[in-house]
Amino acid sequence: MNSDNTEFDLIRRYFSDLSGAQSGDGVTLGIGDDAALLQARAGKQLVVCSDTLVSGRHFPAHTRAFDIGWKALAVNLSDLAAMGAEPRWFLLNLTVPTFDAAWLKEFAKGLKVLANQYGIALVGGDTSRGPLSICITAMGEVDRGKALTRSGARVGDLICVTGTLGDAAYALTEGENSQCIEMLNRPRPRLEAGRYLTEKASAAIDISDGLISDLGHILARSAGCQKSSVFSAEINFEQIPLSPALRTHSDKEKVIAWALSGGDDYELCFT
Amino acid sequence: MNSDNTEFDLIRRYFSDLSGAQSGDGVTLGIGDDAALLQARAGKQLVVCSDTLVSGRHFPAHTRAFDIGWKALAVNLSDLAAMGAEPRWFLLNLTVPTFDAAWLKEFAKGLKVLANQYGIALVGGDTSRGPLSICITAMGEVDRGKALTRSGARVGDLICVTGTLGDAAYALTEGENSQCIEMLNRPRPRLEAGRYLTEKASAAIDISDGLISDLGHILARSAGCQKSSVFSAEINFEQIPLSPALRTHSDKEKVIAWALSGGDDYELCFT
Repeated sequence: MNSDNTEFDLIRRYFSDLSGAQSGDGVTLGIGDDAALLQARAGKQLVVCSDTLVSGRHFPAHTRAFDIGWKALAVNLSDLAAMGAEPRWFLLNLTVPTFDAAWLKEFAKGLKVLANQYGIALVGGDTSRGPLSICITAMGEVDRGKALTRSGARVGDLICVTGTLGDAAYALTEGENSQCIEMLNRPRPRLEAGRYLTEKASAAIDISDGLISDLGHILARSAGCQKSSVFSAEINFEQIPLSPALRTHSDKEKVIAWALSGGDDYELCFT
Repeated sequence: MNSDNTEFDLIRRYFSDLSGAQSGDGVTLGIGDDAALLQARAGKQLVVCSDTLVSGRHFPAHTRAFDIGWKALAVNLSDLAAMGAEPRWFLLNLTVPTFDAAWLKEFAKGLKVLANQYGIALVGGDTSRGPLSICITAMGEVDRGKALTRSGARVGDLICVTGTLGDAAYALTEGENSQCIEMLNRPRPRLEAGRYLTEKASAAIDISDGLISDLGHILARSAGCQKSSVFSAEINFEQIPLSPALRTHSDKEKVIAWALSGGDDYELCFT
């Protein structure tokens, strides 16, 4: 983990207990050298993804540091979940405008709660000074040939989702007081579901842009794999799982928009 | 590779021929799903690093797009070189303020020339809108137990460097007209040297912050590993390799500062 200067070297402290370092976690060499040295397991394939969150774009600028840390890791874990992978390691590239100890402590805490929960170790990255943005690269493993992809759906497959849809979009529209704000700020990556689905589902994706958009990716990739020019899907809105807050909301039209194209749900859609 | 919106989906085009896809490159599934699916080789360890370049901080804002692309990948390849690793895959997280086709084309070209030269395939990442910054995560492999680290130096070891030092700092000070500008903008990662040194060197680091600072990291880590409280080093300035431009420069004091603590050299220091 490199840093811009000495002040930023201090930042490492906040992340020092995130680096796993239990024996058996596959980390031969973690933070502190030019690169991490990791041991992948035999019979496995690596699953790797990377997502950036830019302040004011991927989260409101007033979002709490804890929630930013949580979400930055959660969106990446959600991508691993959609592949059916087991999380192993992650790298954090943090760009912050100033050295704010209280902010950093809270941010690290948000990361840590989630990282500990899913047993993923911080193994590298860097810290820079600049407009606030967080880039995380997450690495996991899956049994060889068992990964879930977007491209395996077949004609006649049932389309399913985990959890409930639309809560994050509802929270974003209705603001701080919504009961759904936690769904927006602290999405729970569906890692257990993803791993279970490696034996069951023909295709999967995580819902980050909204069901219609993300299901569209499954249709496009699956049709492409079967040399079919187009796949279509039938969605019965009455059967979409909604939280009590949305089920009882008076504006049905808004509810449909949130649930179908709201985004930020981080549930899995699978066939 | 996720993108903020449809316009940014177009960005993928510029990077489409960076994704390797030769058989045997270990990429089971590259860009286009929730995550990449990679096959590590038996008997190898993974070497993973990640560095962010922020405009105006890690490169002057007026730097050409080609050079930014080159440098963003080069600094990561340099970290892999310092571990003695063979580059395999990388992820690109690009944040750009606007959709500028000409800029993107040149940026991708800079990445591509270097990626092709060292056989590293683009397998993921994302594109966001925001202040210009580039985060690259590079992954390589090294024979198990053969990685170079910062911690293997012993009392009596000879301290060596590749190439010449101080040219990048000289270019940064003297500006555009310097003969050394290419050393600043297009550093050449010492991958061949790094792999050769896995059988020869006791410790290694890449020189990104200047010889004194980076050699200091070797001393600190190596002393720590031998339960010695402190290691010191003797540097004979007359023996530091300098380019003709610096050898003939009139201001000896400046030359010493550039060569010893200038940074951005991306040569290897090894013992």
